[in-house]
Amino acid sequence: MKLKHYSEVILEEVTMEGAKKTKIRWLISEKDKAPNFAMRMFEVAPGGFTPYHSHSWEHENFIVEGTGALVTEDGELPFKSGDVIFVDPFMKHNYKNTGDTTLKFLCLIPHKKPAKQVKKNVNPFASGKANNC
Amino acid sequence: MKLKHYSEVILEEVTMEGAKKTKIRWLISEKDKAPNFAMRMFEVAPGGFTPYHSHSWEHENFIVEGTGALVTEDGELPFKSGDVIFVDPFMKHNYKNTGDTTLKFLCLIPHKKPAKQVKKNVNPFASGKANNC
Repeated sequence: MKLKHYSEVILEEVTMEGAKKTKIRWLISEKDKAPNFAMRMFEVAPGGFTPYHSHSWEHENFIVEGTGALVTEDGELPFKSGDVIFVDPFMKHNYKNTGDTTLKFLCLIPHKKPAKQVKKNVNPFASGKANNC
Repeated sequence: MKLKHYSEVILEEVTMEGAKKTKIRWLISEKDKAPNFAMRMFEVAPGGFTPYHSHSWEHENFIVEGTGALVTEDGELPFKSGDVIFVDPFMKHNYKNTGDTTLKFLCLIPHKKPAKQVKKNVNPFASGKANNC
């Protein structure tokens, strides 16, 4: 069991290649005995971004503060506080801060990478679920 | 892939016995092809609460707006906007609004209930992780 403010959780530099001005807090993880998935908060300073890449696991996001854009192979989707994002497995993506304040967003991932799947052609503009197309 | 503001997701009444003045939005679910876990937002009006119960799966919470308390067998833990909560499997709990505005919080759960485990004695006051004891 855990109950604390996110700001009490250590803020660590994201050192992965392709990241800029990006930090992370592991809010809930295997260290807390969470059995299935982890909750992280990313904090991206103005001008910063996460690595542009793809992987076999999904992201579930909630934008807490600031403004940004989700970069995909099909273009950029702007987002703001209160927006919800689901990034499918194998979809190329990154998150960049497009504002002048720190962008803070939750990013939840499963603990274990699922078995490798055949890549599907995921087109956010064809899904009927993106809110700006 | 999905990107939309939480307020665009349908707000449904929670009709489960033991709930009062509580509504839910399924922000990300199996309908979105999320493979492992679901993100919901609960909206609890002043005076309202979720059912006091336990179950075999965990909760991962982020408090978006308002103030409330996590009720456990060991007492009540107050929480506020920006707080993070992890509720272990099999731990008795509910969430109640203790303020005069709508309490809004994320609650993430795994899609599939894990295999039944022997109940552990989970005492939030002994975990060293509650922020007010």
